[in-house]
Amino acid sequence: MTITITAFERSPDGGKGLARDTRVRWALEEVGQPYEVRLVSFGAMKEPAHLALHPFGQIPTYEEGDLALFETGSIVFHIAERQAGLLPDDANARARAITWMFAALNTVEPPILELVTARLLEGDKPWREERLPLVEARVRSRLKQLSARLGDSDWLDGAFSAGDLMMVSVLLRLRSSGILDEFPNLAAYVARGEARPAYKRAFAAQWAINAGTPPTG
Amino acid sequence: MTITITAFERSPDGGKGLARDTRVRWALEEVGQPYEVRLVSFGAMKEPAHLALHPFGQIPTYEEGDLALFETGSIVFHIAERQAGLLPDDANARARAITWMFAALNTVEPPILELVTARLLEGDKPWREERLPLVEARVRSRLKQLSARLGDSDWLDGAFSAGDLMMVSVLLRLRSSGILDEFPNLAAYVARGEARPAYKRAFAAQWAINAGTPPTG
Repeated sequence: MTITITAFERSPDGGKGLARDTRVRWALEEVGQPYEVRLVSFGAMKEPAHLALHPFGQIPTYEEGDLALFETGSIVFHIAERQAGLLPDDANARARAITWMFAALNTVEPPILELVTARLLEGDKPWREERLPLVEARVRSRLKQLSARLGDSDWLDGAFSAGDLMMVSVLLRLRSSGILDEFPNLAAYVARGEARPAYKRAFAAQWAINAGTPPTG
Repeated sequence: MTITITAFERSPDGGKGLARDTRVRWALEEVGQPYEVRLVSFGAMKEPAHLALHPFGQIPTYEEGDLALFETGSIVFHIAERQAGLLPDDANARARAITWMFAALNTVEPPILELVTARLLEGDKPWREERLPLVEARVRSRLKQLSARLGDSDWLDGAFSAGDLMMVSVLLRLRSSGILDEFPNLAAYVARGEARPAYKRAFAAQWAINAGTPPTG
């Protein structure tokens, strides 16, 4: 059955791979699942046809026959549950890998999104300079805990899993801030993720669409 | 096998049920699963014994024999996957219910957390008054989309599911702001959640611990 995902017609990051379709592409590449992509403009994302697929007017979405999903975490989990390669077979190890997916999205990503918001959406506000260090401190606090847990392991819990895919994807958003490099084991962890052939194919696929478009953020 | 969760020895909300153990208690009550609770002080949450269970030093955690989990989304999903009552049997409906869990935690909760942060952690900053409307506008933007999708349905996708449990729990954090009441169908949705016997038992269980402790936030 054909799988179709949506992606930005023109990604705001100009092809850095930070748009969330890259996470879904990466998961599909890890399990060896071919897919098609439908590009959506910013205008079309807020129109009824796309809102029927994604109530918050975002990308990516996932369509497979009668099934339509939104929300990156859910899509990656759906892929991971149906095909081998992203979740361990052992029940307890599987539950822990899912835990890291949620931790990436609900514990580590929110302060990182706050930092992105502080820089972009509130970058012209008078409080920018005084407030940024507070937001960065909240990011560092989480990274310090994550770094302590990872230690010198390659991945968060045994073999590479959907939990690592999501955590690496979330941490990638920090690279331009320089904060990631303050935690060498996390920087090396992200680099290990980027070195995976499946990630490289996912990155290249979004780059082929977005290369040369000037970033807006 | 005995299930043990952790909760605040003294919840910062003084018993309003907003601490995240309430979400796990609610899930356990929905499926009729007895559980034990170990209370943890703020100091103990940052010590090695608790950090071994929860790398970010938070509550709740979940222990069941050899299995130890953290992260509310993951714990609720684990409960929902193993016992009937929180996920539909139909594969597509199940995937959509999981989608709403992730949407609650990664799309709706982050702007709500930003609002909580703006009020509490940055409540004494000079930018408070000018910045709060911006943060509130981001919350309203998401709620408007959620309200449009819910329409006049009782729940987000057919019967009550773990997706509704999580969405109602996330929206409850907004009640004191008054913003929830600007969207009557969402306010009624949250009230439907609170009216469920399982929610009432979960709320009462945390209230029995926290009642009378002055809220710190």
